[in-house]
Order: sequence, then C-alpha cells, then structure tokens
Amino acid sequence: MGGDRAPQIVIEGADIIASSNFDVHFLFFGDSKKITPILQNCRYLKGRYTLSHTDEFVSSDEKPSIALRRGTNSSMRLAINAVKDGNADVVISAGNTGALMAMAKIVLRPLPSIDRPAIVTSIPNKKQKATVLLDMGANIECDADVLFQFAIMGHAFARTVLKIEKPKIGILNVGSEELKGHDEVRNAAAMLRASNLQNDFYGYVEGDDILKGTVDVVVTDGFTGNITLKAIEGTVKLMSSIIKEGFSSSIWSKIGYLLASNSLGKATKTMDPRMHNGAMLVGLNGVVVKSHGSTDSIGFANAIKVAISLVENKINEQITDELKSAAEAVKAAIVTAPSNETENA
Amino acid sequence: MGGDRAPQIVIEGADIIASSNFDVHFLFFGDSKKITPILQNCRYLKGRYTLSHTDEFVSSDEKPSIALRRGTNSSMRLAINAVKDGNADVVISAGNTGALMAMAKIVLRPLPSIDRPAIVTSIPNKKQKATVLLDMGANIECDADVLFQFAIMGHAFARTVLKIEKPKIGILNVGSEELKGHDEVRNAAAMLRASNLQNDFYGYVEGDDILKGTVDVVVTDGFTGNITLKAIEGTVKLMSSIIKEGFSSSIWSKIGYLLASNSLGKATKTMDPRMHNGAMLVGLNGVVVKSHGSTDSIGFANAIKVAISLVENKINEQITDELKSAAEAVKAAIVTAPSNETENA
Repeated sequence: MGGDRAPQIVIEGADIIASSNFDVHFLFFGDSKKITPILQNCRYLKGRYTLSHTDEFVSSDEKPSIALRRGTNSSMRLAINAVKDGNADVVISAGNTGALMAMAKIVLRPLPSIDRPAIVTSIPNKKQKATVLLDMGANIECDADVLFQFAIMGHAFARTVLKIEKPKIGILNVGSEELKGHDEVRNAAAMLRASNLQNDFYGYVEGDDILKGTVDVVVTDGFTGNITLKAIEGTVKLMSSIIKEGFSSSIWSKIGYLLASNSLGKATKTMDPRMHNGAMLVGLNGVVVKSHGSTDSIGFANAIKVAISLVENKINEQITDELKSAAEAVKAAIVTAPSNETENA
Repeated sequence: MGGDRAPQIVIEGADIIASSNFDVHFLFFGDSKKITPILQNCRYLKGRYTLSHTDEFVSSDEKPSIALRRGTNSSMRLAINAVKDGNADVVISAGNTGALMAMAKIVLRPLPSIDRPAIVTSIPNKKQKATVLLDMGANIECDADVLFQFAIMGHAFARTVLKIEKPKIGILNVGSEELKGHDEVRNAAAMLRASNLQNDFYGYVEGDDILKGTVDVVVTDGFTGNITLKAIEGTVKLMSSIIKEGFSSSIWSKIGYLLASNSLGKATKTMDPRMHNGAMLVGLNGVVVKSHGSTDSIGFANAIKVAISLVENKINEQITDELKSAAEAVKAAIVTAPSNETENA
C-alpha cells in the first residue's frame, strides 16, 4: 500500500515478473477492495498469489516511532511478519523507508555482529557497470566499526547482486591522501587494511568516483550517503529536462530528436532510475527490499528482480560468512600490531 | 602558476577580461620566462599589467603545511601578500586549494567573529538561477556556530554576486522534519530561527533541492559539501558522455545531432562548469577567489568576473554588517528564551 501509485504499480510490477521465467509466488498484503480490481487485469498472476486483506497501512509521512506503535496490523507489518514466520523469503515495499527499517529491526532483528543495518543501493557508472553505495540514510552518525561493517555488507552485495568476483571497496572522503577526513573514516580504513579484505580495499574515493566507477563499493555514513544520492538523482533530472527543452526549442531540433531518439533512448536508459530500482535493507535477519516510492510498474518489477537475486544467492549467509572472517582477521591484526598509530602515520 | 594549464589559461583569461569593458589592472606573479611569451599574444593586456617574477610556486599535490613553510616566496604567497599590502583588491588562483586557504588564513587572517573561513561556490539550478553552496571542503567538521556563520556568509554572497535581494537559506539535511539530522544542524537551525535572518531561513533541504533551486543558499559542512559538489560534477560529466555516445552511435543520430546542436548547445551551456567557475574563500580579511584547476581561459575569465563583482560590491563589508546584526539578534533571543530546548521539542 506504500508509494505514490500503490497498490497499482506493485501489483502490475508483480504481473511483469509473473509473465517472465521467474518461479515465484506472491503474498499481497493490503486493501482487497483496491487490489482485487487491479488483479483482474493481471493475467499472468492468476493462481500465483495469495491476497491477505487489511484496512491498515503506514502513510508516507508517518514517523517511524508512531508507525511502530500504531501499525501492528498494517500491510507493511504483516508483510515483514511473513518473512519472520517463514511464509515468505523476502519482503518488498515502496512505502515509508524509516518505518520499514524500524519495523524490520524490531521484527527480524539485526544479523549477529551487525550493529546497524543499512540501506544499500547501486547506481550506474561510466564503466557501464554499477557502483554499490551504502548507507543511504538509515544511520546519520557512524563510527569506524559501523563503517567497517558497511564495507563488508557492500562487498557481499556486490558479489551477490552484481556478480563481481572481487569487488573493490572505497571509503568516501574529501581526498585520497591517508590523513584526509575525520577519525571515523581513517579508523575504518585502518580496520579494512588490517582485515582479510585488505586486497579488495582501494582506499579513499571522492564524490565523482561514484560515477566514474573507480571502485565497486562506496562506503559512507547515512548523512553523506543520503545527500549524495539525492544530489545525483537531482542532477540527472535537471540535465534531462534541460536537454528536453533544447530539443523542443526549434523545428530543426525537433527533427533532430526524431532522428536521434532511438540511439539516445538506448544511451539514456543507462541513467533511467527505474533500471536501478531496488535498495536492500542490509544487515537484518531476513531479506528486505525497498522500492522508490515514485517508481512505476517497470521499476517495481526491477525491485522484485533484485529481491529474487538476493534470495537465490543467499545474501545473508554471504554477509555472515564475510563478517566472521573479517572480524577474526581484524582481531588477529590488533593482537599482532604493537600500536594502531603506525597505521595512521 | 597553479592549475593544469597555467600560466597559459590565467594570462589568456585576463586578456578576455581586458578586451571587455572592465577597468582592471592585473598583477601577475610567476615565472617570467613562461609568462612573457604568452603575454605577447595578448593584445588587450598591453599596458594593463605588472609582472613580478618568481621561480617558486606551490605544486598541486603539496601539503598545505609544507607549502606554508617552504612557499614564502611562491607566486601564490606573493599574490596574497599583494592583497594584504593593499596593492591588490583581490587575489585569484587556479592552484592548490588547501595551500591557498592555509596561506590566506595566515596572511590575511579571518574576519572578526568568523571562526572558520569557508569555500563558497554556486551551481546552476532548475529555476535558471544559481544555488550558492558552502562549505565546499575547507572545514571537515563544523559545529552549529560555524554553520550559522556559513549561513550569513552565503546570504551576503547571494545578495552580492547573484543580486538576490532576500536570499532564502536552507541547511542540508536528510529530511525536512525538524528532528532530522545531527545536533550540529539542529542547533544551527535553531540559531537561524532566532536570528534577524529568520524570515530568510527556509529550514532543511535535501540533496536534490540544490538542483531544484528550492533555496538560494545551501549550508553544510565541508565534508558533505565537497562530496556532494564532486558527485554533481561527476554526474554532469557522465550524462554528457552518455549522450555524446548516443549521438554518435548511428548515421541517423549523427544527422539528428547536427540539426539539434544549436538548440542543445544553448541548453547544455547552462550546465557548463566554466560558466560557474570562481569559488570564493569567504570569511577572510581580504577577497580570495579560487578557480577550478582544470578550467580553460573562458572559465578563468569567469572567475575574474566573480572577483570583480565581489570587490565592487564590497562583499566583506556586507558580511561584517550581517554578522554583527545576526549575532546581536541571537544574543537577544537567548536572553529572552528561558531554555533552548523548546526550539527542538
């Protein structure tokens, strides 16, 4: 029931997935009066869903704390419960991100040795691949331990979802020199250099490296991550509208557009946010996927594809394994090194 | 002598300015063996410059602390000294930003009641105006007082350079609700609400608001500001290259480009970073302008235009006046209010 055009785009997105080769069964939670008429136009979904009615839902502007208290029978909560109870492998929502994270934390609990679950997403880069970014806003302030855990979760995400065998990790900073930034990023970098991921740790990266694809995984706190992601999205929108205006400003440019539109369409599809829809709430004892609230059915179908890939590739087992080895390596390094300070010298 | 193509683009940029209606005299500091041949091709500059030779210069990767110690006879230092000594109204450099800020702080000193000088720049927005952004990387960690001072300096910059009578100020955050973000932004917001700028304070803005032009001045710490600015620049570059590829992918799209290029050129000029070149090191007892190191002569000429406008409009007097009234208003508000906490409740 969450998002700008729910439940329409949710059900239609599921229908797109049902029409292709995926072997999935959907559990829909929400207002059956609204959902049933939509289902009637979705022929591929026939026999492949279960609809559970509830009148309650979490609104997009509801505070997480209030949603937690009042929303125990909401569509969001029931969907998360389905994962907890083993009735579903993954929950996907286009609704209120803060409420989704708060409820998922309470119901599913964080994975062992994860302090703070995070929001991870991927955006297109110049190497025609995608850059994995986290945290996108779940944790405003992050210490070095938390950033280190983000690196490991992002690494597992890149291996699982993007199929990159040895993903390179970078920590977002204001320069590449070792002494740049604040204590949190410097200490997280020292931990990564001491860990079993040291060969996959590139070092610091800057804001434009996200788009260049300098590394596969970019780690940052939720404050910087959220602002950076929104600034990138805002720039894509602004440039698209400027170019559109350019094309419609004269008869010649309109003809030019007609001639170029096929090639341009292919090119700009790279930056189409729908093709990259589907962020994961990572670090939870269960798989939770967040769709953009403003996406359409094609974008929502993409979020479902991300969800399927996460489940098929057992993302949480990957994360748990990587965390265990990394923690052991860091511990060993701390025991071996007489002092941490040599790392920062 | 600083920047990727100095001194060429610096001298040629000055020649562009000399060719138009500006009544300026240039003081060039640098290697006369390199500068003299360039000057011979710059006919508008004849009789309008003084060249002071020095062999020394600050390199782009030199640490600010080392540049400070070793660079007392560098072109950068001599140019800053010229402002200090009253021989120049403004210093403009395309060189090492960290060294420029460090030297300017030592030589010119911060303005009274400014704790931390900042880097302020402006970028194009959807309203076909520009958004003023600060700090762009001079101060990694900023408390509420510092953010409050940034707001006042940005406000004065927007009035002076962008000629906006009553600029709207926003603080960059992860959401618009009053309780979002960390203590520093919440306390800075409370100070602005209590100050004489309360009517010009919009509240919190998000990453995409920079591009939308929701407010005229966006305030943030140097860590987030630097990363956000570079992410925006990286996105513009990535999209430009994707579109260029799209146009060159078939014969039809190439013809289309020829037909549309005039209109598109006008449109994409909006996002041309050269047209927005010229950041100010704000909060110093003297006017210091920083050009992008990778710009060309057109971009450098634009930085000179920004410098002229700052001097003509007495930017530092504006800032000093605004700071004084704002500080008095905040003091009065603190005396009146029994407790600060009601502001955050």
